[in-house]
Amino acid sequence: MARWIRYLHDGAAGFGRLDGETIAVHEGDLFADPVPTGATLPLAQVTLDLPCRPSKYIALWNNFHASAEKQGLTRPEVPLYFVKPASCYLAGGQTITAPEGAGRLLFEGELGIVIGKRGRDLTPETATAHIFGYTCVNDVTALEALKADPSFMHWTRSKGHDGFGPFGPVIATDIDPWALEVAVRVNGRERQRYPLSDMMRRPAELVAELSRDMTLEPGDLIACGTSLGSGPIPKGATVEVEIAGIGVLSNGFS
Amino acid sequence: MARWIRYLHDGAAGFGRLDGETIAVHEGDLFADPVPTGATLPLAQVTLDLPCRPSKYIALWNNFHASAEKQGLTRPEVPLYFVKPASCYLAGGQTITAPEGAGRLLFEGELGIVIGKRGRDLTPETATAHIFGYTCVNDVTALEALKADPSFMHWTRSKGHDGFGPFGPVIATDIDPWALEVAVRVNGRERQRYPLSDMMRRPAELVAELSRDMTLEPGDLIACGTSLGSGPIPKGATVEVEIAGIGVLSNGFS
Repeated sequence: MARWIRYLHDGAAGFGRLDGETIAVHEGDLFADPVPTGATLPLAQVTLDLPCRPSKYIALWNNFHASAEKQGLTRPEVPLYFVKPASCYLAGGQTITAPEGAGRLLFEGELGIVIGKRGRDLTPETATAHIFGYTCVNDVTALEALKADPSFMHWTRSKGHDGFGPFGPVIATDIDPWALEVAVRVNGRERQRYPLSDMMRRPAELVAELSRDMTLEPGDLIACGTSLGSGPIPKGATVEVEIAGIGVLSNGFS
Repeated sequence: MARWIRYLHDGAAGFGRLDGETIAVHEGDLFADPVPTGATLPLAQVTLDLPCRPSKYIALWNNFHASAEKQGLTRPEVPLYFVKPASCYLAGGQTITAPEGAGRLLFEGELGIVIGKRGRDLTPETATAHIFGYTCVNDVTALEALKADPSFMHWTRSKGHDGFGPFGPVIATDIDPWALEVAVRVNGRERQRYPLSDMMRRPAELVAELSRDMTLEPGDLIACGTSLGSGPIPKGATVEVEIAGIGVLSNGFS
């Protein structure tokens, strides 16, 4: 297992492998055999950056049995999703300021799948080799915008404001997320916890099905949707999404 | 008025200003005072490339009075939109192959607004300076996927397959699109024609409202939605979207 991180240090961008509280600096392409430089940096001395910069960020809806049951939904025949725009991407440690009038914000703790290799028309068997690793996602949502117009569920607007797409801080490789749980804490108090084994499709199945809709590129992010327990974010709160075995994504809301 | 084009020539990417059938080659940043190199190239000797590479492609819905009236809709309080993923972008002259089982494809001829300068929280007055120019868009749609699941209008899937986002070939600057018309020809026969003056919001109003939802970046593309006359694409057809005064976007469908 490796945990990869990108950072800013002395005004320069870099990346490396995180071992405990120390970064083993690497160079080259994260997705194509990066090379250690031999240098190390203490984690405490860098500013977190996005662990990758997705050419697209696909966000799933209705992907957990428990939440589907509660909403009277069934397993969809194909994955249901929307795209979050690049302008909403945000690194861990950064603060989200919602636009005026956005109304109540919700956290949605989620597993993120990071693609490592270009792929199209994959099978669940071939898709495994296209998954680089996993990260933590908060699919921040302004609920009022979603249903404000009865003729149009406004997924993009409600989930696409600047900063509404925090993910990171690390990408963990060579793990099986099936045994893990997603937990969300608001100001230190746990508000959401659910098992990833309740997902309707395993990561490799999801990647395979999505790759039949469109080509997936290295660095692309698939947020697997949330389950029960999504809830409100009070003004001024700090929200942490933790997937033990991957990491903790922490962001403030102003 | 200038018409900007990107191209591939002898295996290298380049861009320039199109004057008739000749490209005046430029270097630097298209959005920040590009410099002519003095070289020229005949248009016939290059392969068209995307005129820009949007960090996001925002596609409007319900943005024309005539089509709203026909569908029993009214002018929405805010622009309604979804995002088309980068993997669907396609240059003029390229061929679109829909995934197996995608069913009937529709053309939707549209005006595309290209952003030239980063902006957020703009007004219609300040937004004008953020519009670099205009291009032709075909918002290709697989209709069956859109409404296949009654619980979720699947905008992204139906409009996000590889190649479903052709736009170009040029970006025309310093024009007012309000007096122009969008026309679509299928195998040379006109199938759609509508005036851009029927748009519910002028381009600068649209850009201003969208910039209150999210930061707009240089090269970002806003497809203004289609009006009456969108229709089917027969297998093997060539579809041309023409906005006289801007250009002609032509793509084959296999």
